[in-house]
Amino acid sequence: MRAVDIIRKKRDAAELSRQEIEFLIEGVTHDRIPDYQLAAWLMAVVWRGMTSAELAALTAAMLHSGSTLDWSRLPAPKVDKHSTGGVGDKTSLVIAPVVAAAGLYVPMISGRGLGHTGGTLDKLESIPGFNVNLKIDQFGRVLEKIRCGLIGQTPEIAPADKRLYALRDVTATVESPYLICASIMSKKMAEGIDALVLDVKTGDGAFMKKQSDAEYLAKLMVETGTRMGKKVVALITDMEQPLGRKVGNALEVEECIEILNGKGPEDLRDLCHELSGWMLLLGGRVKSVAEGKQLSAEMIASGHARDTFREIIRLQGGDAGVVDDPSRLPRALHQARVNAPRDGFVTGIHCEQVGVASMMLGGGREKKEDAVDPAVGVVLEKKVGAAVKAGETLCTVHYNLDARLVHSVELLEKSYEIGPQAPPAIPLVRKVIGAEGYK
Amino acid sequence: MRAVDIIRKKRDAAELSRQEIEFLIEGVTHDRIPDYQLAAWLMAVVWRGMTSAELAALTAAMLHSGSTLDWSRLPAPKVDKHSTGGVGDKTSLVIAPVVAAAGLYVPMISGRGLGHTGGTLDKLESIPGFNVNLKIDQFGRVLEKIRCGLIGQTPEIAPADKRLYALRDVTATVESPYLICASIMSKKMAEGIDALVLDVKTGDGAFMKKQSDAEYLAKLMVETGTRMGKKVVALITDMEQPLGRKVGNALEVEECIEILNGKGPEDLRDLCHELSGWMLLLGGRVKSVAEGKQLSAEMIASGHARDTFREIIRLQGGDAGVVDDPSRLPRALHQARVNAPRDGFVTGIHCEQVGVASMMLGGGREKKEDAVDPAVGVVLEKKVGAAVKAGETLCTVHYNLDARLVHSVELLEKSYEIGPQAPPAIPLVRKVIGAEGYK
Repeated sequence: MRAVDIIRKKRDAAELSRQEIEFLIEGVTHDRIPDYQLAAWLMAVVWRGMTSAELAALTAAMLHSGSTLDWSRLPAPKVDKHSTGGVGDKTSLVIAPVVAAAGLYVPMISGRGLGHTGGTLDKLESIPGFNVNLKIDQFGRVLEKIRCGLIGQTPEIAPADKRLYALRDVTATVESPYLICASIMSKKMAEGIDALVLDVKTGDGAFMKKQSDAEYLAKLMVETGTRMGKKVVALITDMEQPLGRKVGNALEVEECIEILNGKGPEDLRDLCHELSGWMLLLGGRVKSVAEGKQLSAEMIASGHARDTFREIIRLQGGDAGVVDDPSRLPRALHQARVNAPRDGFVTGIHCEQVGVASMMLGGGREKKEDAVDPAVGVVLEKKVGAAVKAGETLCTVHYNLDARLVHSVELLEKSYEIGPQAPPAIPLVRKVIGAEGYK
Repeated sequence: MRAVDIIRKKRDAAELSRQEIEFLIEGVTHDRIPDYQLAAWLMAVVWRGMTSAELAALTAAMLHSGSTLDWSRLPAPKVDKHSTGGVGDKTSLVIAPVVAAAGLYVPMISGRGLGHTGGTLDKLESIPGFNVNLKIDQFGRVLEKIRCGLIGQTPEIAPADKRLYALRDVTATVESPYLICASIMSKKMAEGIDALVLDVKTGDGAFMKKQSDAEYLAKLMVETGTRMGKKVVALITDMEQPLGRKVGNALEVEECIEILNGKGPEDLRDLCHELSGWMLLLGGRVKSVAEGKQLSAEMIASGHARDTFREIIRLQGGDAGVVDDPSRLPRALHQARVNAPRDGFVTGIHCEQVGVASMMLGGGREKKEDAVDPAVGVVLEKKVGAAVKAGETLCTVHYNLDARLVHSVELLEKSYEIGPQAPPAIPLVRKVIGAEGYK
């Protein structure tokens, strides 16, 4: 078998066999196929797409390029959630403790933020001492004790994805739904879970700006996960404006604590209940989504979820005191306000720009190597639909370095659209893909 | 400027600017852009194609990646011919001396054979002592003396093409008309010529099996050459069966000497006159193609072309005695016959297979590094349309190694199609592209 023949086949829109795909991925893992051949193949995949059989074979080959975790010793179903990323998208920190409090296991492996989107690991690390780099056996001990742990990618899991992703990043081959699906699902299927809820974001602040693209990706992921014997559903959710009111690492932890305390913004709370509800249903803890959402609400009302979060932080080496006293989280030195230029209603918030503004303050990364300032970010005082008066605060910028403020404020000023009428409300959950078996 | 952005732009079917294309090709020449990014870009070009402006910019950038030859000191127009390659395609060895004998300069830079097709350099090297590796100043002295020289690619000319071609070969990105056009035309435009006649082969033994593909490539090349200020026409010519009767390096030289002696097969002679006729017209030596073809015939009838060929061989260090005594050329030790299985007419000869059969005897290369046996090859006693009787010889195999004979004979047996009726004759020149200005 020769890589050049496999590239040619894909170039000419023929279907690759499982053997051919395994040959490629083994070549990736063991450095037997050079980058230039992989790059040509990746571009041919962006061009020609993949059949369901090809995608399943690719995902399986990437999954088996490393080790898979085995939590069969833990005495209840294991469930996880994965989001395709957005601005202010912080649900993991709420739903992981909620679902664990309700009795399921949540062995969550998350990523870091890049570009305008945030990452769960960066948020967790704003909690002083929190260690996301547990070894697998340490992770197992946390799971045994509190049914939930939150760590970063380990080198054992899907090593082929690491090499392929780095190559996609520099060859403009990131934006293929097939390659995105294989990358996400190979890692999630290696986690040793029984069920997965996908939160596929769409809108200005998401990678998939168009809902049809988000749905297409969601269908691929649900189909691939189901083929591999897991229960999978995908929620297509709105990312036309940031989720919740706070954007920035410590600010988002603070907002999650508000939710766990039964407070916080409605949109964030609703989406957390939706996602938790589906996780509880897929994990067999409840009989319907409605029941799952109710159980989720009970876990918050009773304080069980908050207690679980406190315990997770403690077990992972963090300052559990932040749950009861969020002022222990890092705080920016300065605040600045962005005010409404005139009376009216907020008709839109350019979501990606808000993410970029937070990144420019130091809250996110432009390049993988960049360091992140946990304290900075943006608090949206007004969201879409809100009535505003001229001079009223639209959002507050939390910053440490003056030099970074100006551009950030300019961006935020441009992000807000003020009009004479409130726009119609957009539903937060636009669609559920793969729900058929559960209704 | 970043390579990844240029790749993305081409991926998304946008037109690249001249600056972007120059940035890429400078990156190729000076090793500033890694192979994997070039490979992804090449596949995106195979996918999306190129506009006329992009193709002109690419060809110019590749041309200017090295030095260009300057023959302005030579006191008559400089013309060349380039063929896209076929089986038994040996016209260069006839038309270069014909056109030089008629008073124009022919500074011909040729290539080697690969796969089922032969190469002019391999044919020339079957003449004992013939040196195709002249330095540019030696080449110039040969041109000054006899108006024609035949050499191989020099490292000074279009170095970007060398790196790109090697990469295309291993990434399944050879078969793009745009990349083929830029590769050929950048090298030809660097030769310091005023006019170029392209022989674009189509049919089973050509790279372009379909005439529409051949015409598309021909149009691109004519347009690109014309944009660059040269006179260019392209003849679309038949390669459904080998050209002439002989396939193999020394055998083809021998057949060219037959033509220069006023003998040899009609199809080869006709095509040589067509190509020479166009070269003489584009070089301003005659007023019409018809006049050019007549002058070509006169150069052969008078023996001037043969004398010129003898002198070229002498000046390039070869045994000029082969022209008068072709038995001085290398000869294979053995001959074997492939006979007709039944009475009938030859209705087709699988041209590519004949080329492969010759390659398998040692007459061509499977890989670039392979050595070539100058003596071996195939002589077609019967061509398409010929009446045959059962047991009559269809072709003769000239071979040195028994081990290579069997497969080769099997292939040749399968190559001949015998039917009850002679097929209609196919014209050798199917179309001329770019002829409008000359009629």
